[in-house]
Amino acid sequence: MTEKPTDTADFGTTRRGFLRASVAGSALAVTGGAGMAQTPDPLITTVQPWAQSFGDGVDATPYGLPIRFETDVVRRNVPWLTADVTSSINFTPIHALDGTITPQGCGFERHHSGAIELSKDDYRLMINGLVDTPLVFTYADLERFPRESRVHFLECAANTGMEWAGAQLNGSQFTHGMIHNMEYTGIPLRLLLEEAGVQPEGKWILVEGADASSNGRSIPMEKALDDCLVAFKANGEALRKEHGYPVRLVVPGWEGNMWVKWLRRIEVGDQPWETREETSKYTDTMADGSARKWTWVMDAKSVVTSPSPQMPIKHGTGPLVITGLAWSGRGSITRVDVTVDGGKTWHEARLAPQASDKALHRFYFDHVWDGSEMLLQSRATDSTGYVQPTKAALRAIRGLNSVYHNNCIQTWWVKSNGEAENVEIS
Amino acid sequence: MTEKPTDTADFGTTRRGFLRASVAGSALAVTGGAGMAQTPDPLITTVQPWAQSFGDGVDATPYGLPIRFETDVVRRNVPWLTADVTSSINFTPIHALDGTITPQGCGFERHHSGAIELSKDDYRLMINGLVDTPLVFTYADLERFPRESRVHFLECAANTGMEWAGAQLNGSQFTHGMIHNMEYTGIPLRLLLEEAGVQPEGKWILVEGADASSNGRSIPMEKALDDCLVAFKANGEALRKEHGYPVRLVVPGWEGNMWVKWLRRIEVGDQPWETREETSKYTDTMADGSARKWTWVMDAKSVVTSPSPQMPIKHGTGPLVITGLAWSGRGSITRVDVTVDGGKTWHEARLAPQASDKALHRFYFDHVWDGSEMLLQSRATDSTGYVQPTKAALRAIRGLNSVYHNNCIQTWWVKSNGEAENVEIS
Repeated sequence: MTEKPTDTADFGTTRRGFLRASVAGSALAVTGGAGMAQTPDPLITTVQPWAQSFGDGVDATPYGLPIRFETDVVRRNVPWLTADVTSSINFTPIHALDGTITPQGCGFERHHSGAIELSKDDYRLMINGLVDTPLVFTYADLERFPRESRVHFLECAANTGMEWAGAQLNGSQFTHGMIHNMEYTGIPLRLLLEEAGVQPEGKWILVEGADASSNGRSIPMEKALDDCLVAFKANGEALRKEHGYPVRLVVPGWEGNMWVKWLRRIEVGDQPWETREETSKYTDTMADGSARKWTWVMDAKSVVTSPSPQMPIKHGTGPLVITGLAWSGRGSITRVDVTVDGGKTWHEARLAPQASDKALHRFYFDHVWDGSEMLLQSRATDSTGYVQPTKAALRAIRGLNSVYHNNCIQTWWVKSNGEAENVEIS
Repeated sequence: MTEKPTDTADFGTTRRGFLRASVAGSALAVTGGAGMAQTPDPLITTVQPWAQSFGDGVDATPYGLPIRFETDVVRRNVPWLTADVTSSINFTPIHALDGTITPQGCGFERHHSGAIELSKDDYRLMINGLVDTPLVFTYADLERFPRESRVHFLECAANTGMEWAGAQLNGSQFTHGMIHNMEYTGIPLRLLLEEAGVQPEGKWILVEGADASSNGRSIPMEKALDDCLVAFKANGEALRKEHGYPVRLVVPGWEGNMWVKWLRRIEVGDQPWETREETSKYTDTMADGSARKWTWVMDAKSVVTSPSPQMPIKHGTGPLVITGLAWSGRGSITRVDVTVDGGKTWHEARLAPQASDKALHRFYFDHVWDGSEMLLQSRATDSTGYVQPTKAALRAIRGLNSVYHNNCIQTWWVKSNGEAENVEIS
């Protein structure tokens, strides 16, 4: 059974008395009417200190940071997951965010040998291999090429990877936070390749970074000439150091490991390089021990970010905003369904506007919670018609040996006290 | 004469040898081919220090800031413009940004009595006046209402106001930087008004903030019920202190002064309040001394952000990216034209994708500069068909006494040495 989404355009009129009717004492009538008798609230009956003095001047924060009350909305790593912080992962606090844009300051980052400091003056990008003219670009050269700006998500292939073995990490930040979504500005990679002149036998490129890991990856020429960007800005401003300043590769819809940071070199070749990062890592080990290679695309996926283990319901029964993110490496999200009963009944959620393909979409489902337990899930459908699979369906095909490319439907068990846990249901 | 825009999809093939053909020594061939003989570049011929050691670990910056090389890309105020920094303006560094999203940390802010610190626990929003049931909402109450996420620009009515008297401040940050563009998440104001129950004679609302200035403004009910948001997030995360944490009003397309920060109270009335902020301020003084009132909408406007006085051309002749921003408070931008000869010849620019109405649009025009002087302008057309006027056309109607609502075509005089100045042309 599926319901059509409730448009907020109709919400007010159909649910007049939204909070008053359903949540005693939550929205408080202050005088007469339908309101409840109550103790006067000094926050509204007396003039508060912040209304009697000056606040900060405009020169207090030339570059602003979050207010001190929000210090827990930060990237976090999982210390036991990797041996060292220079080859580790910082998860986006998606549980606490809304909308779709991820600020650079709290956006997922992963390094293989630490975030290096590389100035624009010291930056060079080489294109060599099967090209008519090997080229080296300075940063200033790159600024002269035609550029584009598009919003795209970057998702690590290992995002949600712990779920292959069963419900583990307790919180959407840790199960699904190896992702960010920014407005990237850069040069179509195609233009730089055409500048060098790709020879007819040039079918692949190798991309590598200027850091010690170099993180080399092979990309088929068709993708390189399609929608990749050699990017220098994210969300309007220069890339942050940890996001690859001054230049990174953007490979829309494909696994984050290919979005090489501190991009140093692009070699054109006639076959893939079979680097460490595409053989011993970033391949999918199947049930029989064989490895699926070249699984670059991040398939359609979604997750409820709130309520969730890090975002329990604190307000009791009644109106409850259920919200989350959905994305597809193959295009746009056309529909998200939400269930509160483990998949017996699905409800179509509302989607916020999004101009770019291969970008995060925000969904909302406005629910009236009766206080009973919920098995909360979301299910994305993308513009190719593909529907996000259950964990069981994914395991039936891929087994339990994988680390990467787990796009299963996620389940949160929301208890009557509002707390939520990461669980599996059959 | 008008050219169609050059789609980057054709750019590479039609301009093969883009930099090599036109800019000697800029993109350097490294071996043979069409390249030039040159001194080996140690940055590409030797292994650099950053490729031989570890960079920062992922726990180095739980909340990241810009790299130290970008410390000049910050908000700036103009000390002589206001008496004190608690009632002043911080301009967005639009000259140095690209794309459309403005990070909160460098996004335009203006206070009337300083940025106050107001916690979620201390936050209350009252709705009173001509309503069935006066209500007070806590922050937790607001989180239970249906919400929307949309990208919108906020422009101060005084943006570009100095230009009424002639070309003055030298730099797009100062002429056009009283603007930002964020993805705002919040509750449709309509839903909160419907919750209280607007009485038939309720035709206006007064909105005021919790700071000492309170900054009261009247808004007609039609707009209040249309697209306004009671917002708590911007670009995904909580509003920064200086942007009104925890709650501000979003009034899409209308002057920024109405986007009340630290939103405290909404009163419903049968006529406007004629507050200080809509009588002695934020009205438009005409040539005869009379005042235009209720000029809320920000009309279609654009500006070239680079090259510009703060962004001189440093690379000599040849390929040059001309880029800027365009926006309209009445809808979307359908077209931007660029001229390099003071309006004799116009060229249609490319626009980056944008899902929301009343949001910034990024435009690009790829030019080949011959090194001669340019009179650089951009001209926006919006979805109503309205075309951004010249300064002369605007003055003919509005005179020279105004401070607010100057949406004239801006001119940068780019000299042969690449430097640019703010000028007027007749």
